[in-house]
Amino acid sequence: MQLGMIGLGRMGGNIVRRLLGAGHTAVVYDQNPQAVAALVEAGATGADSLEDLVGKLAVPRAAWVMLPAGEITEATVQRLGGLMQADDVIIDGGNSFYKDDLRRAAELRERQIHYVDVGTSGGVWGLERGYCMMIGGDTAAVDRLDPIFATLAPGLGDVPRTPGRDSRDPRAERGYIHAGPSGAGHFVKMVHNGIEYGLMQAYAEGFDILKHANSKDLPEGQRFDLNIGDIAEVWRRGSVVSSWLLDLTAQALAGDEQLDDFSGFVADSGEGRWTLNAAIEESVPANVLSAALYARFRSREHASFADKLLSAMRKGFGGHVEPQ
Amino acid sequence: MQLGMIGLGRMGGNIVRRLLGAGHTAVVYDQNPQAVAALVEAGATGADSLEDLVGKLAVPRAAWVMLPAGEITEATVQRLGGLMQADDVIIDGGNSFYKDDLRRAAELRERQIHYVDVGTSGGVWGLERGYCMMIGGDTAAVDRLDPIFATLAPGLGDVPRTPGRDSRDPRAERGYIHAGPSGAGHFVKMVHNGIEYGLMQAYAEGFDILKHANSKDLPEGQRFDLNIGDIAEVWRRGSVVSSWLLDLTAQALAGDEQLDDFSGFVADSGEGRWTLNAAIEESVPANVLSAALYARFRSREHASFADKLLSAMRKGFGGHVEPQ
Amino acid sequence: MQLGMIGLGRMGGNIVRRLLGAGHTAVVYDQNPQAVAALVEAGATGADSLEDLVGKLAVPRAAWVMLPAGEITEATVQRLGGLMQADDVIIDGGNSFYKDDLRRAAELRERQIHYVDVGTSGGVWGLERGYCMMIGGDTAAVDRLDPIFATLAPGLGDVPRTPGRDSRDPRAERGYIHAGPSGAGHFVKMVHNGIEYGLMQAYAEGFDILKHANSKDLPEGQRFDLNIGDIAEVWRRGSVVSSWLLDLTAQALAGDEQLDDFSGFVADSGEGRWTLNAAIEESVPANVLSAALYARFRSREHASFADKLLSAMRKGFGGHVEPQ
Amino acid sequence: MQLGMIGLGRMGGNIVRRLLGAGHTAVVYDQNPQAVAALVEAGATGADSLEDLVGKLAVPRAAWVMLPAGEITEATVQRLGGLMQADDVIIDGGNSFYKDDLRRAAELRERQIHYVDVGTSGGVWGLERGYCMMIGGDTAAVDRLDPIFATLAPGLGDVPRTPGRDSRDPRAERGYIHAGPSGAGHFVKMVHNGIEYGLMQAYAEGFDILKHANSKDLPEGQRFDLNIGDIAEVWRRGSVVSSWLLDLTAQALAGDEQLDDFSGFVADSGEGRWTLNAAIEESVPANVLSAALYARFRSREHASFADKLLSAMRKGFGGHVEPQ
Repeated sequence: MQLGMIGLGRMGGNIVRRLLGAGHTAVVYDQNPQAVAALVEAGATGADSLEDLVGKLAVPRAAWVMLPAGEITEATVQRLGGLMQADDVIIDGGNSFYKDDLRRAAELRERQIHYVDVGTSGGVWGLERGYCMMIGGDTAAVDRLDPIFATLAPGLGDVPRTPGRDSRDPRAERGYIHAGPSGAGHFVKMVHNGIEYGLMQAYAEGFDILKHANSKDLPEGQRFDLNIGDIAEVWRRGSVVSSWLLDLTAQALAGDEQLDDFSGFVADSGEGRWTLNAAIEESVPANVLSAALYARFRSREHASFADKLLSAMRKGFGGHVEPQ
Repeated sequence: MQLGMIGLGRMGGNIVRRLLGAGHTAVVYDQNPQAVAALVEAGATGADSLEDLVGKLAVPRAAWVMLPAGEITEATVQRLGGLMQADDVIIDGGNSFYKDDLRRAAELRERQIHYVDVGTSGGVWGLERGYCMMIGGDTAAVDRLDPIFATLAPGLGDVPRTPGRDSRDPRAERGYIHAGPSGAGHFVKMVHNGIEYGLMQAYAEGFDILKHANSKDLPEGQRFDLNIGDIAEVWRRGSVVSSWLLDLTAQALAGDEQLDDFSGFVADSGEGRWTLNAAIEESVPANVLSAALYARFRSREHASFADKLLSAMRKGFGGHVEPQ
Repeated sequence: MQLGMIGLGRMGGNIVRRLLGAGHTAVVYDQNPQAVAALVEAGATGADSLEDLVGKLAVPRAAWVMLPAGEITEATVQRLGGLMQADDVIIDGGNSFYKDDLRRAAELRERQIHYVDVGTSGGVWGLERGYCMMIGGDTAAVDRLDPIFATLAPGLGDVPRTPGRDSRDPRAERGYIHAGPSGAGHFVKMVHNGIEYGLMQAYAEGFDILKHANSKDLPEGQRFDLNIGDIAEVWRRGSVVSSWLLDLTAQALAGDEQLDDFSGFVADSGEGRWTLNAAIEESVPANVLSAALYARFRSREHASFADKLLSAMRKGFGGHVEPQ
Repeated sequence: MQLGMIGLGRMGGNIVRRLLGAGHTAVVYDQNPQAVAALVEAGATGADSLEDLVGKLAVPRAAWVMLPAGEITEATVQRLGGLMQADDVIIDGGNSFYKDDLRRAAELRERQIHYVDVGTSGGVWGLERGYCMMIGGDTAAVDRLDPIFATLAPGLGDVPRTPGRDSRDPRAERGYIHAGPSGAGHFVKMVHNGIEYGLMQAYAEGFDILKHANSKDLPEGQRFDLNIGDIAEVWRRGSVVSSWLLDLTAQALAGDEQLDDFSGFVADSGEGRWTLNAAIEESVPANVLSAALYARFRSREHASFADKLLSAMRKGFGGHVEPQ
């Protein structure tokens, strides 16, 4: 089927390529004409404006917005909403905040335009492995788009099937789900990323402990010089902690066991924060997910005010002067 | 080659079976004669005492102790030490504390007996998938036992190989490593389990947030009824959080999405605790691994004294009476 | 000077009494006529509706809303806004969310009505000890109300003065501050409560450790039967951890060292949650404040879904069946 | 009564001065003859060796060791044990690990020498305010030393008395307790310090959030420039978070609100670590106390390996390059 794509960065471009490769058609637009040209060469129809794109799409239209979450996505959805008509579908495939989805869906519903939010995991590997998708929206729209989703998803692949799922929705094991009404897709993707932060931090702390097993803080007879690259590799084989993130860790450590190319500064995107906000709203304890996010905040600070205040108190009650 | 096995529970028994299946021979002993008989039927030589087992092993001997960590392992290693002689090897394949390994190795070294500690991951799946092994001990002993380890390990299997490891120790990608001197094997296994706790808790918190997405604490328009079994399943396909623990989660949720068979009580074994002790000794921050362990402690309490004290303070300063 | 008071619960009623005792006058209103009558007897002027209260106040008016944060405060501020006129002041002395203050102040500013938010700490003890107040609003309005604040505040009392504050704002050491524009008062009060949760949890955990010093988990020679009531008391004298919360703890433990009257269920009000939301917005790590809030969430659950999921995974990879 | 004092640093010297001032006598020893001379001038009897000190003490002797915890305290206690005789008392007033007390007490008990451990809080303020003391040891020895403890303790002072303590041990409200057998004193002091870390970190995080209330991460209309020195001061008056640590915070911020003299590096002594080890041994959740310790560990690192590993994974799955 035909899909319009707005935003031809790494994600948007690869999604179009995967669709074209499976026989779908696409009308594409990006602020950068070279990005459009590259996909026209790959078989897509180019558009030089949002209006042009909408005009070139057959009704009922389906237009996928694949832009950075925030102002530009908001503005684009708003403009598209003005250009499209009843029964068309606008898809936001970025990492929008699910409460923005709720609002947009309500606004567009008044004009009978469908709004579908798609949380997508798979990053740079999606073109090859397929995209794991969590979808929110009304059933009619999500079902209509099924050929698109089925193509983008990884499919069964060689992942062993989970026993006992025979009577369950078969889409899940093909790599996409219809999670619920608008907002549900990004909500699930948000929690996915929250978990991702927690998993990453668990590995990071564990490897840090291994790395410091020869610390001078330890008594001499209790130190080990561990080869953490080999440890990451061996855990990939039959251990309880095997995972894709561990595969990536093993790859990184095979390249440089000291990880000297990295400054220690770790960015975070919004989903980890929103996950905590959701936990707080729901009264669900989330110590691990919080600690994982805070570790990233802390990584970006040097000499935090909090730490200085600790030293000030220590000086006050004990006359302690910090050694450094 | 020939191996003596003391302790024929699920782990010890399956290790012997995997060895016999590959053409090795085994002398086996267990307090329970039926456990011995079962393995004799499978091709092992039975022993009716430690002394008998030692007597039936060819020198230099290799005897693997596969018993619950703690007193019984300690006593067995001590008794074996008294029975064996220079150049023999005692292997502790359980989950002993690495500082016990350091002590035992030093004691046995005085009598020229080798002590090898093997941390093993893979649990009930090891017979089929192979055992992921982290090994500590002197090189001569570990190398002599290589045929045993090579058989027990999962091997390359169909796990994609990590690029850039050509010049690295090939044992790691076959599923076992020689981590360092005695104690290093159990140290690495200990941290493995610490990470395992952290990973598990990250999933647990995330799924708890998903489960509570329809909480009455939330405004009505912001609730979702999510199918968390489908979510676990879809994340197995191409998402960043895919892992073996997620596979197991998907299996459990496919069986019963409410998990009503579980009481909420969660046990912990020693490794999670020792990992934190090690982090503290090394001055390494470990908020995630700590929170994961504490969640298990908390799961086993009802109406904790800490919580009562909070209420007592709240009553003191604000006259607050708790609603329940 | 004259103050209107809406809401004559424990806080509102005591504030009026403290003002009347110092020679100020008050017009008071509450949905409950008996509450009004009680304060009329104490010297206040009663009103039987918001309109009546506004009518009885001399211009420029000052009306203090002392109601539970949320819908009722919002509705009352809105109605008052409609009744009052340019240069009047509306004070919200409850625990409103500071972003609600920002919005209300902007709305009222269009009609030249001042909006002042007052975060108040001191609870049931305020009538006697005075109220610690954190005030947000424009300077003209806050300065005009100074006689009220000066009376309500604890004053210098017998608290030792902080050296080096001679050139600083003298209001702080009398127990009130003008923290900034509208919203700043509740923002500071919010963080105050966030800290309060953290302090409480630090004591709770510490006393829990003392309480469990005779745990059967410990080796026999390492157990202590500690008198935690005496410990709380002794720490009040010259120790680094002395505080008002510790005073309250000592009082509670002097009454019942087991705290058997408390169920273990611990409520939380919004401020702890909002503090974390603010930390997350500001990218400030807040592990302690988060853990304190989550402990309260956890206190209200029995057999959490997160814990059940841990058990499900443990069963999956290790065949573990929880002991209970 | 007479006390021997070994170690005349700030703590030991001031303890002797406080005792002399109340009419007690002291025999004093320090490796540094000038420290001895200074106290001889204040009225003490000097000793030029441990042997000399022991010889100058009347039987049954009481000798207080006030040295840094660790090797030097251990060696001194051992040497004293060899010099003293049945019914003498050795007091360790430092911050020893309580398991060392258990061992030492057992060793000395064989020779009928009493061992008393005294945890002391009050630091540089003790000479003036008195020392808060937590004492472990057998009752006969602790009772014999009561005149010493009564003098050193702060006494009732002007701290309001806790209602309901009439039938309780009166020593607690005079500032010292007999916590239990040997080890109990240092155990209680250890948890005291664990709590201290938690309280400090709660304030540190809260003030950090206040400090960042004008962060550029926040939307423009939601920023506040807060005077955190005034906030610390106002909270000292009638608020729930008032404490001695807050007094010290207010003093530090009155001097320099930026705390620019502090590097951000925060040391920790052993007690915070031992408190966590105890919590882990007892299976008591201690998220706040752990987070407080880990924050100090983290303050001493720059570009942690854990953080680098997070970046390595992010690069692996998303091609993310950290902005800095």
